[in-house]
Amino acid sequence: MALIAGCAGAPPQGEEVEPSARYAFWRPAPVVEAPDPAKVVEEAPAEAWRAIDPQNLLVVELKEGGRVLIELAPDFAPVHVANVRAFARNGWWNNAAVYRVQDNYVAQWGNGDAEVPLPAGVVRRPPHEYHRALEGLAVRPLGYPDSYAPMVGHAQSWPVGYDPEEGRAWLTHCYAMVGVGRDLAPDTGTGGELYAIIGHAPRHLDLNIALIGRVIEGIGLLSARPRGTEALGFYKEAKDHVPFARVRLASDIPEGERPSYEVLRSDSEAFSRYVTGRANRGGDFFKRPAGGVDVCNVPVPVRKRPA
Amino acid sequence: MALIAGCAGAPPQGEEVEPSARYAFWRPAPVVEAPDPAKVVEEAPAEAWRAIDPQNLLVVELKEGGRVLIELAPDFAPVHVANVRAFARNGWWNNAAVYRVQDNYVAQWGNGDAEVPLPAGVVRRPPHEYHRALEGLAVRPLGYPDSYAPMVGHAQSWPVGYDPEEGRAWLTHCYAMVGVGRDLAPDTGTGGELYAIIGHAPRHLDLNIALIGRVIEGIGLLSARPRGTEALGFYKEAKDHVPFARVRLASDIPEGERPSYEVLRSDSEAFSRYVTGRANRGGDFFKRPAGGVDVCNVPVPVRKRPA
Repeated sequence: MALIAGCAGAPPQGEEVEPSARYAFWRPAPVVEAPDPAKVVEEAPAEAWRAIDPQNLLVVELKEGGRVLIELAPDFAPVHVANVRAFARNGWWNNAAVYRVQDNYVAQWGNGDAEVPLPAGVVRRPPHEYHRALEGLAVRPLGYPDSYAPMVGHAQSWPVGYDPEEGRAWLTHCYAMVGVGRDLAPDTGTGGELYAIIGHAPRHLDLNIALIGRVIEGIGLLSARPRGTEALGFYKEAKDHVPFARVRLASDIPEGERPSYEVLRSDSEAFSRYVTGRANRGGDFFKRPAGGVDVCNVPVPVRKRPA
Repeated sequence: MALIAGCAGAPPQGEEVEPSARYAFWRPAPVVEAPDPAKVVEEAPAEAWRAIDPQNLLVVELKEGGRVLIELAPDFAPVHVANVRAFARNGWWNNAAVYRVQDNYVAQWGNGDAEVPLPAGVVRRPPHEYHRALEGLAVRPLGYPDSYAPMVGHAQSWPVGYDPEEGRAWLTHCYAMVGVGRDLAPDTGTGGELYAIIGHAPRHLDLNIALIGRVIEGIGLLSARPRGTEALGFYKEAKDHVPFARVRLASDIPEGERPSYEVLRSDSEAFSRYVTGRANRGGDFFKRPAGGVDVCNVPVPVRKRPA
């Protein structure tokens, strides 16, 4: 991309500016012969993939049938992820339900985690794991501007925002990411109440709430629900809820039956080609590649693990 | 916001960069005492609102009950909007249906517009109205970087990308925006087949397809549908389709019965305060205002017209 004189030249809020004012943050430089992202993924070598540790895979079975698979991110929210594992191992969510679906925002589930006895191993007031140290994290910079963070990219195949000045990195609220519901106080979310993003990325939640993972299969079972009619999309009656049959860690499921997935490594050359392809969509349909992409429009490729 | 030395310093795709590399596109400068966007809208004076011309309001009634209201944008895609009006006036979509719902992407409807006789007044091969002249358009710059366009903002209360260098502006593919389905050739979309965005903004479609408006009421009737199981989210069987009862322009509905809405003027002082509030969410829940926002997270406020 090429930068234009005055890339800093965004006007203060409210100041009137001639639309012809000759400033811009950057200028996209579309790549006309970019690779087809689907083909890049299809042809990615075995070593470009990493298996999802069964300890990091939450298996949610719905009473109506179907399942939602959630990959956990212990390196970003270790205490909350440990809580999630403890909740799962204690059967905390068996018979829990989705009780809130708000259009263009979130689907939320649980069975209450405040003022009730919690299972052994659950920390009631975890630290607010809204960010982690940038140090020790190998980030692949996306290479395009972001509307929220100084820098964005991918680390360990997760979408991240980061700030080299403050030395911090954090997961971003992209579609299908899973976060910890909390009350007003930052330390009131245990991980017992979770939500998945089902609309345009609400990035304003970044650095305000702990993200613990992402839905890698079955997001449609959450996003296609009727929207709740109460404030914030809560369902009016229990009969509208979407009940779970049981929720387990893949590691607690016999090996023969457990789902096994892998994700494309964000430090692989294939991933770089994938990003370039996502930022420069071509083929017969697209007439003008964008020459840019936002971090939430680079969904990390996931596949069933080859036998 | 403050810019850091080397705001241009995004790495070329694929180049490995130390995460601690001290560059960034910009640095958000959160406003701690920002206005509450909901309160700003509530208190906006009457002159901050513009009525939606009934000629620019498409009323879609579903057979199952409920309606979807779509505001049209004639100043951005005049020929396609004229086509849409002609289709509506000729009852083209009565008994049409939603036949495609793809998760995190689009809901699409129509009844075919290729190789069939079209109603009087419909231009079969409209020009590709993917952008318009920036000249003559009063844009309010958003004031934050965008991952796709040199500049973004709002014009006539529509979200736009624009490029002062090329002198062009275009509508952006934000949630609930409505576009024209087309075949591979740019001039194959008449406006008879339309889609609404129901997921994270697919901004890569900007400048590749004509946007003709946005859903201002009833988006949940499209977004909450079961996802189609065929490729691209097409429904497998006609029984899965969501049939329309009829589709009319509000101007063709008797005044007493016609819906009447208004939108917040993007050139109003209230809108500037609203943007600042959206970019710096505060109150009791948010612990750290973002200090930035993307153009698709600034939904233009719409309300029923006060009697």
